[in-house]
Amino acid sequence: MPAPLDFWFSIGSPYTFLAVMRLSEIAERAAVEVRWRAFDARAIQVEANDAPFADRPLKATYMWRDIERQAARFGLTVRLPIPYPLAEFERANRVAALAAGEGWCPAYAIASYRHWFVDREPAGGEPNLSASIREAGQDPARVLGLANSEAGIATLDAATNEAREIGIFGSPSFVADGELFWGHDRLEDAIAWQHNLDQGNPG
Amino acid sequence: MPAPLDFWFSIGSPYTFLAVMRLSEIAERAAVEVRWRAFDARAIQVEANDAPFADRPLKATYMWRDIERQAARFGLTVRLPIPYPLAEFERANRVAALAAGEGWCPAYAIASYRHWFVDREPAGGEPNLSASIREAGQDPARVLGLANSEAGIATLDAATNEAREIGIFGSPSFVADGELFWGHDRLEDAIAWQHNLDQGNPG
Repeated sequence: MPAPLDFWFSIGSPYTFLAVMRLSEIAERAAVEVRWRAFDARAIQVEANDAPFADRPLKATYMWRDIERQAARFGLTVRLPIPYPLAEFERANRVAALAAGEGWCPAYAIASYRHWFVDREPAGGEPNLSASIREAGQDPARVLGLANSEAGIATLDAATNEAREIGIFGSPSFVADGELFWGHDRLEDAIAWQHNLDQGNPG
Repeated sequence: MPAPLDFWFSIGSPYTFLAVMRLSEIAERAAVEVRWRAFDARAIQVEANDAPFADRPLKATYMWRDIERQAARFGLTVRLPIPYPLAEFERANRVAALAAGEGWCPAYAIASYRHWFVDREPAGGEPNLSASIREAGQDPARVLGLANSEAGIATLDAATNEAREIGIFGSPSFVADGELFWGHDRLEDAIAWQHNLDQGNPG
């Protein structure tokens, strides 16, 4: 069997909401195994001078309307407007990177986005942070102690370096055997690509 | 009946290739009437300091690979790499704006993109330009005389102003009764929105 599909994401990216909420079900239906990989997309975008929505009010307004329409199409509840950008972007993703290593990343990421997009509580900040950790079955004190330690910071940095080396430039991204797909709009394509790999067919 | 779906596009945008090639068939199947509206997306992007792929080599490399995959998925022939960006972007779109007024825009746009993406001849330059005008059933001398006149320049400028007032920031865009959809990935959504309008259903 080839390696699983890598799902590279940062909590804080608005479009990533759609991918985080939909990925598990779609992957399961296709019998595709997914590795959740949190990284710091903001750091990479700053390096590339590529903040697609900053200082572009028309595009930002469009983005929220588009997300609202897409969410409705997929039956996902959202209560816009929500706080944006996230003040505690890094902390949200340090916990996600730690969670990825410990095996409870999907539950944490889904809870973070739900509290952010439905309850309007910024991800990475309280009360969202501790509630999301708890909903993933973990103890907030333990997790936050680890996430804020040097090792916790290094875990996210290492993931971001790995993403950078692959050539990832935004969230969400999907990598199937070196083939990169960017954006929620490519979720189904990435799953199909991985499914073909798993079946032993060339992409 | 509500107004038709407006398809706002600039020849020269790589992703617009997919929309130009696929739109007519999809619209026809849904019994949706489309107005082709050429505008100068580059001028609007320059004003907004928003050139998504310029000076972003990773993203540009990804874009071409993504277009190649999407084209394969839709059965469209492409022979990448092709000349990019277009030196004669404005001229290609002055002719398109003129063609939109005279009713032969789809044939011209499709021919321009085919010569560019398959024969690797830049759109807006020769031999692509005259061949595409001819394939749309028009006389290149007449059309180019008009397109390069003050009136021809004013026609594209007026369309670009209209796009700017609507809040359009990129190509391809679709507008159904004031509802804006951006990107080839939203083509089907835009058609469905217009179809519902045509049926008298709220979006």
